[in-house]
Amino acid sequence: MEPSLLNNIRVVLVEPSHPGNIGAVARAMKTMGLLRLVLVSPKQFPSAEATSRASGADDVLHVAEVVETYREALRGCGLVLGTSARSRTIVWPQLNPRQCAELAVAHAADSDIALVFGREHSGLTNEELDHCHYLVQIPANPDYSSLNLGAAVQVLAYELRAAVLSVKEIKPVAEARDRLATAEEMEGFMGHLEEVAHGLGFLNPAQPRLLMRRLRRLFNRAQLEKAEVNILRGFLKAVQQATHDKRGA
Amino acid sequence: MEPSLLNNIRVVLVEPSHPGNIGAVARAMKTMGLLRLVLVSPKQFPSAEATSRASGADDVLHVAEVVETYREALRGCGLVLGTSARSRTIVWPQLNPRQCAELAVAHAADSDIALVFGREHSGLTNEELDHCHYLVQIPANPDYSSLNLGAAVQVLAYELRAAVLSVKEIKPVAEARDRLATAEEMEGFMGHLEEVAHGLGFLNPAQPRLLMRRLRRLFNRAQLEKAEVNILRGFLKAVQQATHDKRGA
Repeated sequence: MEPSLLNNIRVVLVEPSHPGNIGAVARAMKTMGLLRLVLVSPKQFPSAEATSRASGADDVLHVAEVVETYREALRGCGLVLGTSARSRTIVWPQLNPRQCAELAVAHAADSDIALVFGREHSGLTNEELDHCHYLVQIPANPDYSSLNLGAAVQVLAYELRAAVLSVKEIKPVAEARDRLATAEEMEGFMGHLEEVAHGLGFLNPAQPRLLMRRLRRLFNRAQLEKAEVNILRGFLKAVQQATHDKRGA
Repeated sequence: MEPSLLNNIRVVLVEPSHPGNIGAVARAMKTMGLLRLVLVSPKQFPSAEATSRASGADDVLHVAEVVETYREALRGCGLVLGTSARSRTIVWPQLNPRQCAELAVAHAADSDIALVFGREHSGLTNEELDHCHYLVQIPANPDYSSLNLGAAVQVLAYELRAAVLSVKEIKPVAEARDRLATAEEMEGFMGHLEEVAHGLGFLNPAQPRLLMRRLRRLFNRAQLEKAEVNILRGFLKAVQQATHDKRGA
């Protein structure tokens, strides 16, 4: 089930000039579960190029809202977050994408939220920025900061999704925990390993513990699963079998 | 000044089929300060389309390394992170992009790191995945999880940059550790282990690869240090000695 909080967050593109970018934005949005797109006076829309670039996200384009003015695009929004590629001379309350996402998600239950992207080449005007509660800046390589529109939306949409999921995110690593060997099983394995190592004359008689401690550290770090302990003990048994056969011979 | 830790992280594309995607990846990388691209048997490279899509990031393409095999691409890497769009049936140590970035940055001072992306349509093979210490999955909309290659690289590169910027002043955990074993050293160890397991009759002749894959997964997860590889190989030698003595007897 998709997180419903994302339904309260709209992406606003102000006067996008390349239809391909609109499609790329739709695709980036949908991969992260954002479905509400608002276009302010797009140069060309709808367009075949946008649909093509949207790939399977053309449904986002179908329900996209086209408005004439910036103000209409923000209607009903309690929080407006504007993106900016460059640092402004005016000191603005500025967020990085993660802070932006956390803020948006914290407010999304209460209010509609707009995430605003300016024109491809000139961004947002100062007057448009005046309507933003915060500016968001993606930390980019100062030598080459030209994320295209689709890429910028991808990063911010990803952070929004991560923020929404972070509360209830299932960590796959944790799933494996039921399968992990218990402390007793680890002790059984380490004892077995020491026995075999001893039998092989592998431990330094002067400092037999040193090597075992290193091996223990290694296997603890790997957080062995029960099945893996069984495999390793099977291997040790095979070694013992070989040694035993030899003794018997 | 750009964070130098990012110079130790390479992006590996396995058999990319669309030149445009290679260009988009170069652009996504450079916006986040990643400059090392390795291409494994690209269908077409160099190409005008890649250069065009790279926009101002064509310098990343100029210095990109083209190799024939996956193994060459991982040469010298102490940590290999594979990306995966789908959940696998085998439980794999799995990371989200943020965990991936934190891990990579913690190790980047110490070791070369590979971030591996599979083929556009079929991803990475199981055998290729076997060489990865961790799998990274971008949490996407389950109804539409098709991030294209450029978008996936953009998200992960963004997280890497964010991680580098946030730990700039902190000494990487990795510095306290011994140097990690390289991919070649791991191969040497795994080959040795297989030889011994085979000699002991420990592998199921019907499915000899299955057990070796599980063991590889275990030891990859532990991120073996050089010294540990030496200890384990010493142990294997002792086993071989015992087997040999027996045969001699």
